[in-house]
Amino acid sequence: MNELLTENEVVEIMMSYLNSQGYTIERYATTTQIGIDIEAFKNGNKICIEAKGATSSMKDSARYGKPFNDNQVKNHIGKAVVAALKVLNQECKDTISAIALPNNATHKKQINEIQTPLKQLGIKVFLVSKDNVLDYF
Amino acid sequence: MNELLTENEVVEIMMSYLNSQGYTIERYATTTQIGIDIEAFKNGNKICIEAKGATSSMKDSARYGKPFNDNQVKNHIGKAVVAALKVLNQECKDTISAIALPNNATHKKQINEIQTPLKQLGIKVFLVSKDNVLDYF
Repeated sequence: MNELLTENEVVEIMMSYLNSQGYTIERYATTTQIGIDIEAFKNGNKICIEAKGATSSMKDSARYGKPFNDNQVKNHIGKAVVAALKVLNQECKDTISAIALPNNATHKKQINEIQTPLKQLGIKVFLVSKDNVLDYF
Repeated sequence: MNELLTENEVVEIMMSYLNSQGYTIERYATTTQIGIDIEAFKNGNKICIEAKGATSSMKDSARYGKPFNDNQVKNHIGKAVVAALKVLNQECKDTISAIALPNNATHKKQINEIQTPLKQLGIKVFLVSKDNVLDYF
């Protein structure tokens, strides 16, 4: 069974991964803050990453420690895709726009269903587990 | 002030518009049904349209007759964009993928923020009012 990562944990694991790949973190946001979750640089190239978790980060939420249901995952994927599209709309064309999702079956199934247009736009997807980040495409 | 269209009303107005433009409706779905909302043909070319309303279609919903709040509009735009991306993922490359939204400030602002990548993918946007459909891009 997969561990249930919160959005903040996905952000933390992604930042460690980016550091290991030679990126410098410029800024990051926690779930309650506005804006893209991670901005990082490597050799003058920028990457902007929108992250989603598999369970609520809020200790007082009814869903804390439980997996999000299918409708919530759909809402998250939708919001993450819109955030990644906004990056493409705002940033210069060399900026990489990316999404970081929990590495589980529900998230993978939903992202697979839209992979052709995401690849066409150059939007990258990372699948995040506790001990590992998969550069999915 | 804008009238508040439900998703079913947006679907009905879009179908009348498509008929007036020479399209034949192949199938359509109401809010409670699964699948893309409208599939239509003209001269052998297919268009698939995902529609969203400005208020709930459900008479027993707390939001019936009230406008969706900003977070609900964001969820709707996200779901509509994912549905439009799924069409691009599944259908042959000649199929047009489109989104139909209520013609109001909230929806227009959010769609404007992602218009460059939507145009790059060839995803069309229609803005729907009670008496009028605007072919936005």
